[in-house]
Amino acid sequence: MLNGNMLIAHGGGPTPVINSSLLGAVREAKRHPEIETIYGARFGAEGILAGDLMDLGRFSDEELGLLSRTPASALGSCRRKLTDADYPAVLECFKKFNIRYFFYNGGNDSMDTCHKVYQLACQSGYELRVIGIPKTIDNDLAVTDHCPGFGSAAKYAAVSALELAFDASALPIHVVVMELMGRNAGWITAASALFADRMPCEHLVYLPETDFDKEQFLSAVKEKWAKGRGLLVTVSEGIHYADGSPVADSGIVDGFGHKIPGGAAQTLSDMIMQETGLKSRSEKPGLLGRVSVGLMSQVDQREAEEAGAVAVRSAAEGKTGFMVGFQTVREPEYRSQTCLIPLEQVANAEKKFPLEWIGPDGASIAPAFQDYCLPLLGEYDNRFAYLR
Amino acid sequence: MLNGNMLIAHGGGPTPVINSSLLGAVREAKRHPEIETIYGARFGAEGILAGDLMDLGRFSDEELGLLSRTPASALGSCRRKLTDADYPAVLECFKKFNIRYFFYNGGNDSMDTCHKVYQLACQSGYELRVIGIPKTIDNDLAVTDHCPGFGSAAKYAAVSALELAFDASALPIHVVVMELMGRNAGWITAASALFADRMPCEHLVYLPETDFDKEQFLSAVKEKWAKGRGLLVTVSEGIHYADGSPVADSGIVDGFGHKIPGGAAQTLSDMIMQETGLKSRSEKPGLLGRVSVGLMSQVDQREAEEAGAVAVRSAAEGKTGFMVGFQTVREPEYRSQTCLIPLEQVANAEKKFPLEWIGPDGASIAPAFQDYCLPLLGEYDNRFAYLR
Repeated sequence: MLNGNMLIAHGGGPTPVINSSLLGAVREAKRHPEIETIYGARFGAEGILAGDLMDLGRFSDEELGLLSRTPASALGSCRRKLTDADYPAVLECFKKFNIRYFFYNGGNDSMDTCHKVYQLACQSGYELRVIGIPKTIDNDLAVTDHCPGFGSAAKYAAVSALELAFDASALPIHVVVMELMGRNAGWITAASALFADRMPCEHLVYLPETDFDKEQFLSAVKEKWAKGRGLLVTVSEGIHYADGSPVADSGIVDGFGHKIPGGAAQTLSDMIMQETGLKSRSEKPGLLGRVSVGLMSQVDQREAEEAGAVAVRSAAEGKTGFMVGFQTVREPEYRSQTCLIPLEQVANAEKKFPLEWIGPDGASIAPAFQDYCLPLLGEYDNRFAYLR
Repeated sequence: MLNGNMLIAHGGGPTPVINSSLLGAVREAKRHPEIETIYGARFGAEGILAGDLMDLGRFSDEELGLLSRTPASALGSCRRKLTDADYPAVLECFKKFNIRYFFYNGGNDSMDTCHKVYQLACQSGYELRVIGIPKTIDNDLAVTDHCPGFGSAAKYAAVSALELAFDASALPIHVVVMELMGRNAGWITAASALFADRMPCEHLVYLPETDFDKEQFLSAVKEKWAKGRGLLVTVSEGIHYADGSPVADSGIVDGFGHKIPGGAAQTLSDMIMQETGLKSRSEKPGLLGRVSVGLMSQVDQREAEEAGAVAVRSAAEGKTGFMVGFQTVREPEYRSQTCLIPLEQVANAEKKFPLEWIGPDGASIAPAFQDYCLPLLGEYDNRFAYLR
């Protein structure tokens, strides 16, 4: 039994359920007497470097309970990528606060950080148990079947697209273009097609896994519009031309050195108006797709909470150097169980949307993705009245 | 007792509850034996002109019941403004289908149409009862306390802003700018400030009722950002400079001849980045703010259904030439009742957001608006965990 304190930190963009993982971790930690003080880092890696930790044990159960429906990160997060020069300060913070259990809740970059902290502890002979808690709306973490955060972002995309499709069909005066998050991976945008068979209008969907072809796009828009049912186009913020250049670029570079795309829907909408003479308008819910508590998936919420709890339980059992992942069966009904994945297998690896799940027209999604994704959305009634 | 058929049509942009008014009207009409066939016009005025009506009596109660949670318009709508040349065709359609009860569900422009149809019937001696059913997310119809559709749009704005404020505070790496609908009236954007006292970050809000001043804006952004808590800016799509020119313009003109604004958030976000050196990103949920069933207000839903029912009941009682409106008391608790407002009082009139409810800084909303608006949102739990 390793006695000492625990530290949990958030990295990267929050999801609707990152606070649920925090809830699961804190509740589990309270069950282990060897875990003395439960610290949270203010604003992720920034808080660790500055030694800016808070004692989470002082919050009431009622207050902690609100975490399961609180958007964004209750601890604060950051996009700071730790460099080699930062790690001595990390170790210093751990020693100062006698941290023996460290949990980092994040995506690819955060799992890389987590892995480096694990290696650092091993190399320096500092006894520390390190477990990564997966979190990303992008669903691009390797090995695990899916990531906490994705189910809710997918539900947001699927429901929003279905609702917009009804609007596009009811008032078919413009092509409606919606932009969804996902710089390199098209999982969220693909989810916008989950209810395509329920849509009363035509639908085109474009992911960053393929090259965007302007002529093919305009020709598809004209063909679909001509059917007279209205047209919804859903598009990932990260779509790019064959030469790799982004269709739209916000001009911002983030803390990890990644260019931030943005404005793809507006660009396509302008393109439609200029080149086809059709009217078009664009919607960009952006961050709303990762903060909406109303469209949170209950399956996602439960799994996120479980991931936090399992991380702490595993560390208490002596495990270190792993990320919590999910293994699933989908027949006869969806069931998931957690597993532990060595951090080196997930650090900086990126799981893109499978090309075989993109339709032959490059603008639709194969039914196999529905089988994969629908269970992650939890319960949702997609029956609407259509009287026309 | 006037025997004959009934026609209901939708005009303008759908709201989350326009189908609830349809449900209320159809259910009520079924209770009146003098109303023989219940017709709906496909795509509003377009359907009337083309004689393209459908018999709504053929739908099951179960199917009709779905209307209360169906986004957009189940009948279809249009933005066609009827001209004097069109009215003979309207009358011809009414005669052909023996329409004696006509209900038009729409906003300012539609109430003008409704009023003209009423006058036309009077002048030509065609016995017809005409009642307008109010519908607009913009809340800009005159005389009535508020309009069905607004409560849901306000809830969408209030909840989305609160959720974004948590994100802006948790990852304060950029100023977050959100654009909301409302070309000339700032009611929806004002609703984004309803939970301002719950926001963990700074907030600035800009309505089209005031002139936008770039220097004041940039200075407010710098001052608020300097507090280190993150910053959310919410802005109406229709904001304009002192000379009346729009801050952003989509380049589209709609069927009523109105210029469609668009891109105000992106424009402000670019302005912030260029002029202050801060990072910024923009969100534009756009149509999602008027289709989201998940954020529908239950008070709004009930009132919309009631408005439809009251319209039919009033016509059956012999009333004509009115719009259904709402009168309310808010103390000791919110109660509303319907009233009938002569159509000429609402046709083309526009109720803007009261200037006295805009704070002295021009970028905040007075508490009096909370007293007015919060009851329209229905039940919503705005308690979130904030551990920092």
